[in-house]
Amino acid sequence: MTDTAMVAQQSTDTGAADNALAQTIGRVAGFQAAGVASGIRKSERLDLALIASETPCTAAGVFTTNLVKAAPVLLDQAHLAHSANGIRAVVVNSGVANACTGEQGFTDAAETAACVADTLGCATPDVLVMSTGVIGIPLPMDKIRAGITTAADALQPEGWADAARAIMTTDTRPKCAALVVETPGGPVTIAGIAKGSGMIAPNMATMLAVIATDAALEAPLLQGALQAANAVSFNQIVVDGDMSTNDSVVVLANGAAGVTVEAGPALDAFTEGLTAVCTALAKGLVRDGEGASRFITLHITGAADEESARQVAMTIATSPLVKTAFYGGDANWGRILAAAGRAGVPLDADKLGLWFAAGEKSAAIGEPSAASNGGSGAVQLVANGTPTDYREADAAATMSDEASTVRLDLGRGAATATVWTCDLSHEYVTINGHYRT
Amino acid sequence: MTDTAMVAQQSTDTGAADNALAQTIGRVAGFQAAGVASGIRKSERLDLALIASETPCTAAGVFTTNLVKAAPVLLDQAHLAHSANGIRAVVVNSGVANACTGEQGFTDAAETAACVADTLGCATPDVLVMSTGVIGIPLPMDKIRAGITTAADALQPEGWADAARAIMTTDTRPKCAALVVETPGGPVTIAGIAKGSGMIAPNMATMLAVIATDAALEAPLLQGALQAANAVSFNQIVVDGDMSTNDSVVVLANGAAGVTVEAGPALDAFTEGLTAVCTALAKGLVRDGEGASRFITLHITGAADEESARQVAMTIATSPLVKTAFYGGDANWGRILAAAGRAGVPLDADKLGLWFAAGEKSAAIGEPSAASNGGSGAVQLVANGTPTDYREADAAATMSDEASTVRLDLGRGAATATVWTCDLSHEYVTINGHYRT
Repeated sequence: MTDTAMVAQQSTDTGAADNALAQTIGRVAGFQAAGVASGIRKSERLDLALIASETPCTAAGVFTTNLVKAAPVLLDQAHLAHSANGIRAVVVNSGVANACTGEQGFTDAAETAACVADTLGCATPDVLVMSTGVIGIPLPMDKIRAGITTAADALQPEGWADAARAIMTTDTRPKCAALVVETPGGPVTIAGIAKGSGMIAPNMATMLAVIATDAALEAPLLQGALQAANAVSFNQIVVDGDMSTNDSVVVLANGAAGVTVEAGPALDAFTEGLTAVCTALAKGLVRDGEGASRFITLHITGAADEESARQVAMTIATSPLVKTAFYGGDANWGRILAAAGRAGVPLDADKLGLWFAAGEKSAAIGEPSAASNGGSGAVQLVANGTPTDYREADAAATMSDEASTVRLDLGRGAATATVWTCDLSHEYVTINGHYRT
Repeated sequence: MTDTAMVAQQSTDTGAADNALAQTIGRVAGFQAAGVASGIRKSERLDLALIASETPCTAAGVFTTNLVKAAPVLLDQAHLAHSANGIRAVVVNSGVANACTGEQGFTDAAETAACVADTLGCATPDVLVMSTGVIGIPLPMDKIRAGITTAADALQPEGWADAARAIMTTDTRPKCAALVVETPGGPVTIAGIAKGSGMIAPNMATMLAVIATDAALEAPLLQGALQAANAVSFNQIVVDGDMSTNDSVVVLANGAAGVTVEAGPALDAFTEGLTAVCTALAKGLVRDGEGASRFITLHITGAADEESARQVAMTIATSPLVKTAFYGGDANWGRILAAAGRAGVPLDADKLGLWFAAGEKSAAIGEPSAASNGGSGAVQLVANGTPTDYREADAAATMSDEASTVRLDLGRGAATATVWTCDLSHEYVTINGHYRT
């Protein structure tokens, strides 16, 4: 699929991985990015990002399903529907979410887009706007306007790292990912940045991601690819279950690679690559979840249908009891079964099977096929709804790493679901219990 | 309604309230109770409670809707349906939940009932069994049998306080409530004990309540009264959203007061009294919720229907972000609106109104009627979905007490819902993050 391996940035350390990432991101032809300090946030923090394409892009987006939607979300949905020429840029500010801001909020979001359009020489509907930060206060438009001018001057192909930093709120590190995909027509590059998973920050609103590709795709194909990628990446993560008012993922395709991706093998390869980029960003959001100290892969297998598998997975992944047990490194299976039992889907308590394993593992842990491949190191804790004679030390060992995998089999069918989540720590309470001051 | 005011015990301090409570509980004619240390739990903690009636009772129960049900829940449902003579006793152990214990669990629960039946001279189906504690380990039947013998010897009309103590797990104090209800036929007494709200304790399963009355009621009337009372008391509380495998509330009516409660005004008065007892116990559970430092009354008003009002209330009350803000004493309205927006019910973001007030207040806070009555002290934070010009100091003042009230008006109809909940604190994480050792 790729001629360079997937590269994703988790830390701010310079090093081989970061160099490879920078090189790959720099290969997204025809895109430039910048991150500047516009004064929206205190101190000299970068707080405004601009990603621009030299030529118009097809674009696709997926947005929060929260019924309390921030103004920029509603604006972007309109612009994606009505841009006559194609999207040219995405502008993102952190510090202020522009949510619950009424009519003024819409006026401000539209003026932000107009300001970028003026600067870049395109039409207002060709610009997408994202905001993340405190709910309920208006955008400081003077700072936004000045920041856009500064950012436009700073645009450069290597500006992605600054852009990733400028969209952070309480994130502890920027999240970037990039990938070169070999398609039948030639190589194309997909690069993306993201911030803040779930609505995890003090009164902050948002998980945002901006992805760019130099492939050429018709908008419906791009939207389809994004929806497919999103379903198994960003929609598979949960930090605290609190859906934001601002969640947005957009992808821009400017065609600068000279490769047109048509339906068929090319689209399949592109969608696979887009999924890999989205997955790397999504896992990065969980690992940097508020106060997170552990990364948990939760597989539900043997469900009657996918919807019920997902419902059981989300109920377990958002259970405060389960999440605090993960924090304690406690293979506390009773809480997992109890959460499954209240998930609102049919369940046979005496058919449940539960396995734990160290590390990020597939849903095959506990299967004979996994064991015959040298073993998955999985410990079966529950069979037929009752505890096995597992040794507590073996169970505890599966929780000693930064990453663990849990598989719950419902014994009812063949449907599965996977969710990535993190623990609920003292640090989460500290961060979110703070006064907004 | 009553000739003595409602008395509920929250602390272990001796004092006027406790004396009044003890006197009222002692008036439940024909019932005896005991709490003993049978050795199920470490040290000399009371861990087995027995409540017995001198004569057979009509009985009613409401149980967990979790599909992973503990053995005693299934046993009690069968006994309530099949007891030919009437219920004579309830036996409760703490320390072991007898959940996820397979066939052995059912055998052990049935044997526990049989042991009580032998001791008291009644039939096995005349005994109800409750368990609370660790999931997945079998009941220590030797200790249970010996404990039942000890408890039967210790039965006395004043034994309720010991019984309330014996059913505690990580509760920090016993919960008792009692009330004398004046019915057309004369006074009857209703008394109850309860433990542990939600599935809040380390690998512990359960909220349990046992209520006794010396009124005489036909079983269907008693079941109806319990369901009505339960709907607006125990079903209105939430600590962490984790429904237990063992949740049970049972009420026994032995008729020893010589007063028969028939449908009509007598039943209305009885139901009102039962509701008051259940409400006092339910609020006690929230106030003693794991790590709880604040008691929050959450009113949803202006909903299209009760179900959606309740769904919005429960979504807000279980939001980690909302609960940590309560912990921080932060009137963080953005999180409340965002939680409402993801509750899965239709919502008009621009019609939302939000008020905070100090103390336990009614759903009328913010209404002109409340203001004209000297004011409810409510601060309106949001009108038409956007922030008012409230002063932050006024909002913070509503969160400075142990109890606060929040009202969210959806502006869609006339339906309402109320939920009582607590905050999410460092202490919750500490308690539930501990290893099971």
